[in-house]
Amino acid sequence: MKIGRVSHQGRVRMVVVDEASSKVAFIGGSLSNHPNPVQAVIERRITASELDALKEGEASFSEVGFLAPIPVPVRNIFAVGKNYTEHAAEFDKSGFNATSSGAAAVPAFPQIFTKATTSLAGPTDDIRFDPAHTASVDYEGEIGVVIGAECRNVAPADALGKVFGFIALNDVTARDLQKNHAQWFLGKSLDTFCPLGPWISTADESPVESLEVRTWVNGELRQTGVLTDLIFDVPTLIATLSRAMTLLPGDIIATGTPVGVGIGQTPPKFLQDGDLVRVAVSGLGELNNRVRTL
Amino acid sequence: MKIGRVSHQGRVRMVVVDEASSKVAFIGGSLSNHPNPVQAVIERRITASELDALKEGEASFSEVGFLAPIPVPVRNIFAVGKNYTEHAAEFDKSGFNATSSGAAAVPAFPQIFTKATTSLAGPTDDIRFDPAHTASVDYEGEIGVVIGAECRNVAPADALGKVFGFIALNDVTARDLQKNHAQWFLGKSLDTFCPLGPWISTADESPVESLEVRTWVNGELRQTGVLTDLIFDVPTLIATLSRAMTLLPGDIIATGTPVGVGIGQTPPKFLQDGDLVRVAVSGLGELNNRVRTL
Repeated sequence: MKIGRVSHQGRVRMVVVDEASSKVAFIGGSLSNHPNPVQAVIERRITASELDALKEGEASFSEVGFLAPIPVPVRNIFAVGKNYTEHAAEFDKSGFNATSSGAAAVPAFPQIFTKATTSLAGPTDDIRFDPAHTASVDYEGEIGVVIGAECRNVAPADALGKVFGFIALNDVTARDLQKNHAQWFLGKSLDTFCPLGPWISTADESPVESLEVRTWVNGELRQTGVLTDLIFDVPTLIATLSRAMTLLPGDIIATGTPVGVGIGQTPPKFLQDGDLVRVAVSGLGELNNRVRTL
Repeated sequence: MKIGRVSHQGRVRMVVVDEASSKVAFIGGSLSNHPNPVQAVIERRITASELDALKEGEASFSEVGFLAPIPVPVRNIFAVGKNYTEHAAEFDKSGFNATSSGAAAVPAFPQIFTKATTSLAGPTDDIRFDPAHTASVDYEGEIGVVIGAECRNVAPADALGKVFGFIALNDVTARDLQKNHAQWFLGKSLDTFCPLGPWISTADESPVESLEVRTWVNGELRQTGVLTDLIFDVPTLIATLSRAMTLLPGDIIATGTPVGVGIGQTPPKFLQDGDLVRVAVSGLGELNNRVRTL
């Protein structure tokens, strides 16, 4: 199933998405008043057929506005750096990686950081920044994994069983802040720097092999990547994280971005006021975020 | 005021702490059933006199067990690396900093990472790890800042006005994982790697100038540091973070550790099964955490 949240006639509604017909079905019952209904579906393991029984009316995509499926994630979003071979090379070559000196472009271990919960933005929200704060904002189209069950010390062979589904996201990055602060957290965590959505598609409907991410800036295709090309694949990421810490239902792991970010262009191209960034993932819908400087 | 949570006769109670008499007063009313009452006090700006009116009975420290004041933080804990001059040097010299090559030991910008919410532990909980996972676990006694109000773009001059209070914490670190994964998040985020407490003392009662942290391992004093010695002081940290992102009530910022961690010893001394790590901060009580290997 595909689930999300929309605004419709002034209300926020939880919906089940039918991508083929471009329609959403509204979910009623107690979930209709829940502040974080998609998170509740994940935690309570509510099934597609249980949701079917709660459907009350429908609308076409054009009649609703998609919101971030999870407005307040359970904690910071996990994110993985340098997880596609060609991107690892373009990033290190750019001079913006304060942690690359002496190390091979392709890391021997996953490089994992987090993005602040407050960086979340909806699929059509503006990406906003102050040019006096950062002058090198960049996109990173990515596929996010949504964890379905609390788990610890998961073997790679069992890891996909812990996945609830997948989601499109944009790991927007202030390259100068990423470099200056050495640890990547700050430059990755500006408010609005994690557009997310428009819906979560469950793993049965969107298996790993089906997922391809593409990123456009003002209509120009910049990135194409398939999830099967990750250096550290989804089972390895879940095994690595859960070896260290308990994972929680609703945890989101941004799996890394493919080659073609702004700093990989010659010369580098940073996002400017008015630019439109589009990130589409097969079966997961697309993000369309306008860049606005403050 | 000083506030926290204790277990007492099989119940978890919110308390106001009287350090001088080594007593706690239990708080009744609706807070007594709240799953995260200290967080509620911060968010609702409940005052000391309002809490006074809710007191119902008391007990001595010896009759209760202190718990982490905030069991589930609003998101990952912010933490700052290399924020005391001598510690910055000892860390870079140790060879465990994958991000130091070519850079001066004392950073030009705060190096900010996060610790997972699930790393939280209480003031007397065990610090646990699997020696097959990490062979170089280290302590970092620190003073944590607790944010009192949602804020954005705070000027340094206004920053202390956004502080609710301070708390003792131990930024336990797996040095090998910190190095291998380059980004510090993973090696800092193992379950039980953030002992916290025993209480939060408000900024009026515990001003910055009053705060000194000391760390002992098995009774041997290893670290001493005062908060006024930070390279990036508390107002600078709040200004830097809030320039990028909205800060939330209950956010915790671990401000950095002074010289004297295990990798700074000659030869390096890593934590072993059975070790007792004690972190004390003037006016904030102390943590006493036993190390247990799995």
